[in-house]
Amino acid sequence: MITDEMLRQLRKVITSSARVLTDKADLVSYSYDASFGSYIPDLVLQPISAEEVSGVVKAANHWKVPIYPRGRGTSLSGGPLPVHGGIVLDCSQWNQKLIIDSDDTVAIVSPGVITAEIDHAASKHGLMYPPDPSSAHVSTIGGNLAENAGGPRGLKYGVTKDYVLGLEVVTPEGEIIKTGGRTIKNVTGYDLTKLIVGSEGTLGVITEATLKLIPRPQAAQTMMVIFDDIVDAGKAISSVLTSGLLPSKMEIMDQSSIVAVEAYEPIGLPLDVDAIILIEMDGHPIAIGDECEQVKKVCLAVGAKEVIIAADDESASRLWKARKLVSPAIVRKKPTKISEDATIPRSKIPEMFKRLKEIKEKYDIDLVVFGHAGDGNLHPNIITDKRDREEMRRVEKAVEEIFATAIQLGGTLSGEHGIGTMKTPFMEMELGEAGLDMMKRIKLVWDPNNIMNPGKIFPESKDQRLVLIND
Amino acid sequence: MITDEMLRQLRKVITSSARVLTDKADLVSYSYDASFGSYIPDLVLQPISAEEVSGVVKAANHWKVPIYPRGRGTSLSGGPLPVHGGIVLDCSQWNQKLIIDSDDTVAIVSPGVITAEIDHAASKHGLMYPPDPSSAHVSTIGGNLAENAGGPRGLKYGVTKDYVLGLEVVTPEGEIIKTGGRTIKNVTGYDLTKLIVGSEGTLGVITEATLKLIPRPQAAQTMMVIFDDIVDAGKAISSVLTSGLLPSKMEIMDQSSIVAVEAYEPIGLPLDVDAIILIEMDGHPIAIGDECEQVKKVCLAVGAKEVIIAADDESASRLWKARKLVSPAIVRKKPTKISEDATIPRSKIPEMFKRLKEIKEKYDIDLVVFGHAGDGNLHPNIITDKRDREEMRRVEKAVEEIFATAIQLGGTLSGEHGIGTMKTPFMEMELGEAGLDMMKRIKLVWDPNNIMNPGKIFPESKDQRLVLIND
Repeated sequence: MITDEMLRQLRKVITSSARVLTDKADLVSYSYDASFGSYIPDLVLQPISAEEVSGVVKAANHWKVPIYPRGRGTSLSGGPLPVHGGIVLDCSQWNQKLIIDSDDTVAIVSPGVITAEIDHAASKHGLMYPPDPSSAHVSTIGGNLAENAGGPRGLKYGVTKDYVLGLEVVTPEGEIIKTGGRTIKNVTGYDLTKLIVGSEGTLGVITEATLKLIPRPQAAQTMMVIFDDIVDAGKAISSVLTSGLLPSKMEIMDQSSIVAVEAYEPIGLPLDVDAIILIEMDGHPIAIGDECEQVKKVCLAVGAKEVIIAADDESASRLWKARKLVSPAIVRKKPTKISEDATIPRSKIPEMFKRLKEIKEKYDIDLVVFGHAGDGNLHPNIITDKRDREEMRRVEKAVEEIFATAIQLGGTLSGEHGIGTMKTPFMEMELGEAGLDMMKRIKLVWDPNNIMNPGKIFPESKDQRLVLIND
Repeated sequence: MITDEMLRQLRKVITSSARVLTDKADLVSYSYDASFGSYIPDLVLQPISAEEVSGVVKAANHWKVPIYPRGRGTSLSGGPLPVHGGIVLDCSQWNQKLIIDSDDTVAIVSPGVITAEIDHAASKHGLMYPPDPSSAHVSTIGGNLAENAGGPRGLKYGVTKDYVLGLEVVTPEGEIIKTGGRTIKNVTGYDLTKLIVGSEGTLGVITEATLKLIPRPQAAQTMMVIFDDIVDAGKAISSVLTSGLLPSKMEIMDQSSIVAVEAYEPIGLPLDVDAIILIEMDGHPIAIGDECEQVKKVCLAVGAKEVIIAADDESASRLWKARKLVSPAIVRKKPTKISEDATIPRSKIPEMFKRLKEIKEKYDIDLVVFGHAGDGNLHPNIITDKRDREEMRRVEKAVEEIFATAIQLGGTLSGEHGIGTMKTPFMEMELGEAGLDMMKRIKLVWDPNNIMNPGKIFPESKDQRLVLIND
């Protein structure tokens, strides 16, 4: 797909040969992400300036060769997969710019900066960059922006999109544009910033971002709430959030998650319970103690078995470690993990748990549920083995049913992982024909040659189905 | 423009003749808003269902007749003005739906609901709808959504857009679509919700919205910080916001504003000062007292003359009343008020004050400055008399220079009022040709016949200029 003549021209745009990868071994390492499927690109380029991206995109648009922007490849939905061959634009080397402007309380970053480093840099100025996806220590801000990454702190502080004030973007035709700016408020024309954040690289390449920072909370306290019935846990979440309290995190773990974690590394979680909720309150040091007591009272009133307030930072860290260990713990049983993020209105959490249990039994699969309970963003995880084709077919059906259930309960296909390649067949089910059409129109008019990350978000045929394994 | 045959067909869509206004007297009352210019529509319709809107829009699209959605007409930028004649779609009668779902902490509203009523209804459930534009007791949520209205609480809580989870929208071709949903997190495809909020009615008619509510803060405290030099006020704002404190409001009034208010109604503001900042802290009752003390310390350290913490709710209310009185107070001198909302990065507040002073002297105009200092969203107001044509020409030049200055300082044309008819000539100055073109493409592909609120946001000719008075 990439001719010698094309390569010659691209080498004029990216003159450092170290940043033009053509070796088969290199290409293979860009063929996958943290989701499913493997597709080898024809070429990998590592740009470090908007001008380089512009040059590459203009050429690719002229030749009608697909381009796939990529960060560190931690996508759980197939965002950076080069499904139709062509050029992977690896922005992970482009980490040179990380400026904290404490007067304007903003960060200016290049796309390859590791997400956690932004918050770390902000903390030195008493500021915070709140979005905290589990991958924050590995993933790049460019990928976070493309996918609109979430995380536990989303409950109180919102997701990536809520912190983007402005972008520099290379359009699918290679023009460099600026969207938004450096001010908190901006209503000058259409909000292209929030259109591009979360558009999964299909509307352009983000080459710089201006991020909003907020004052860093002065203290935090963690508590574990134990339930004999997961339905009560659902009720407790609503009760806390309508009692004038806003936790910074509110994460649920079902019994299977707890058992898996304790088997993996004994943390001291109670094993004979149906679910636990981990809650973090943050804010003013003299307020949070009182707020934790209020949370405790509310939880006990709706049927919590026990509420344990972490005695010190060490105990708190241990509890949050338990939450982080769920993913590594559950893959010990079988090697393949399908991490879903179907999201439902908060009030439907108990119903969703019931339905997930039915799906688990119906398809005889290993299903573990944990996630960001406070905002209804559950992570049903299916543990399987992709070499077991018979089981994988059942898993595919179960995943389809999870999506359908979420939509039926007034929820959405994806809360924070994105549509990518995996969920395209279900878009019309959620959006309707006219709703999907309005999205397609934007894609078409911005990217007439369909070169920017093709095969993502939009179904490519009417009869496309969920396929977790390449045949 | 509206033929008898068209009217006959539209009466089949909106069967109640009380909601089809054709009398000249009625039409005239829809010819203006709170900005400049007057344009009489051919017809006013008052829909109360998405089906009615769909029927009207389909017909208008077929005939290529312009449609202008309108709430209560409080727009300061000309948003609802029927500049090319046609049909005004008055949604202010459509206030039937205001549902608070406290389990999901959302409100579901029809477009004609008065904004303040949403927060009032939420407060009964311990919840809050934070956006608080000055017009909140008059304006409709539909208008707030179209313009992405802000307000003082924007500093801590964000603007209208930050609270919209989902919309029902009638597209410019009359299709009813749903965007977003009822969940806090949603990354299913492009964010049409945030594209439509703030698009000033140019991409469709909002027929229902699902709004996010948050726990209502339990207490609030107000303080007045007095400065002998407005530059110190600018410094104080940055210092407070980088000291781990996040006020819920932070409003500035310059000397002219203070003098005008005291002349209008004696509140007891200090007259011999250069500026005051009003600050509100909200949150946990035992924390805010301490936080106010911290704010006080920070302000005094950077040169505040005095810090007065309101002793009780009554004193606090009096201070906020002073802020609200600025607008009525300043129009006593001359009848015409041009309220601008050019917004700058916070660090540029002192520089902006200097520049505004220069502009005031250069064009010999009455210029008063107040506004949302915490987020750089100042409101330079020019007080004039539109019958004085010579002065109005000077005012037009001064306004142009305010826009250019804001952009030069890294700011934006509009922080919360919108572009409307007034600021279209300056769009390219801020966005560049390519940036503006990407917005135009969306408009074109969504509304090929340009019937949805034409003449707004986009300049209609290359040589369009700012005109505050119809000749």
